[in-house]
Amino acid sequence: MPRLDFWYDLASTYSYPAAMRIDAAAEAAGVVVRWRPFLVGAIFKAHGWPDAPFNVLPTKGRYMWRDLQRICDALGLPFRRPEPFPQQSLTAMRAALVAHDGGWGEDFARRVYRAQFAEGRNIGERDTITAILDELGQDGDAVLAHAEAPENKSRLRSVTDEAEKLGIFGAPSFVTESGELFWGNDRLDQALAAA
Amino acid sequence: MPRLDFWYDLASTYSYPAAMRIDAAAEAAGVVVRWRPFLVGAIFKAHGWPDAPFNVLPTKGRYMWRDLQRICDALGLPFRRPEPFPQQSLTAMRAALVAHDGGWGEDFARRVYRAQFAEGRNIGERDTITAILDELGQDGDAVLAHAEAPENKSRLRSVTDEAEKLGIFGAPSFVTESGELFWGNDRLDQALAAA
Repeated sequence: MPRLDFWYDLASTYSYPAAMRIDAAAEAAGVVVRWRPFLVGAIFKAHGWPDAPFNVLPTKGRYMWRDLQRICDALGLPFRRPEPFPQQSLTAMRAALVAHDGGWGEDFARRVYRAQFAEGRNIGERDTITAILDELGQDGDAVLAHAEAPENKSRLRSVTDEAEKLGIFGAPSFVTESGELFWGNDRLDQALAAA
Repeated sequence: MPRLDFWYDLASTYSYPAAMRIDAAAEAAGVVVRWRPFLVGAIFKAHGWPDAPFNVLPTKGRYMWRDLQRICDALGLPFRRPEPFPQQSLTAMRAALVAHDGGWGEDFARRVYRAQFAEGRNIGERDTITAILDELGQDGDAVLAHAEAPENKSRLRSVTDEAEKLGIFGAPSFVTESGELFWGNDRLDQALAAA
């Protein structure tokens, strides 16, 4: 089966609906999805953005929240505007790499998105991540110890460099095996068709 | 019939496919479209953007051209990347206001988009606009004289202020009679449904 890479950051707003619907959509399209966590904030910084683009442009930010609410309503997904925004996803992202190694990365990512965008929790707090790991039947402290080992930290940086080399500048992004890039939750169906 | 305002700038890339398909899509949806020319570049400047966002972020710009090509291919629209980019749309936009007064603004706008995005012409050159006006059976010089009268120049500034007050930060944008804002060619169908 053809493969589509799903590049996501756990702090990214539009990655939430994409993460919640990608597996069913891919199955219907006969495509295998490979989840690829990367630090979109590091790419923003490399482009000279001081903050999330939605915070740099207040009118764009107001629009984004309304737009995201409409998207979630249409999909039947619960939505609650996160405070603070953006949230610091670094610890969660390091844990996501470990989770994908263990084969439960998708469940972890969806659980973190739900905590942030539906339950009003702050995923930037270490306790939130530990609690989520425990809820998933993992040993939260052990996973975080592994996640914060120097090799894993540098692996997340390498993966982010790989994303940047693919031309990725935002999340979610989708990349086909032939290197065709699609940006945004809106492009998921088109990306699956291209895959 | 309900009305949807279509806010466009003749220099805006994604406004090209939107302009080419909006009338048929609106007719099918039973919605009347009001075309509203405004200067999106003035809003970018007010937000501190020195240039088109696609030029500020080169990877985003490269992606945009590929994405626009795919959109045009899917719609069967001819596409040729304009040089230079962005093009200076001020004269054309002033003429568009006059053209809408005369009831032929939609034809004019579509003709200008085609010149820029399909025919490799530079709409920032006065001769291009005069030629298009003449092709449409208008007196190009007379229309431009009217377009560049002080009242018409200040009208375009007022309309742009109105767009900004509606929360518009990019083109194309769509606003329903109840003030609901939708941004981007991707949101046209959703905007028509909301109207």
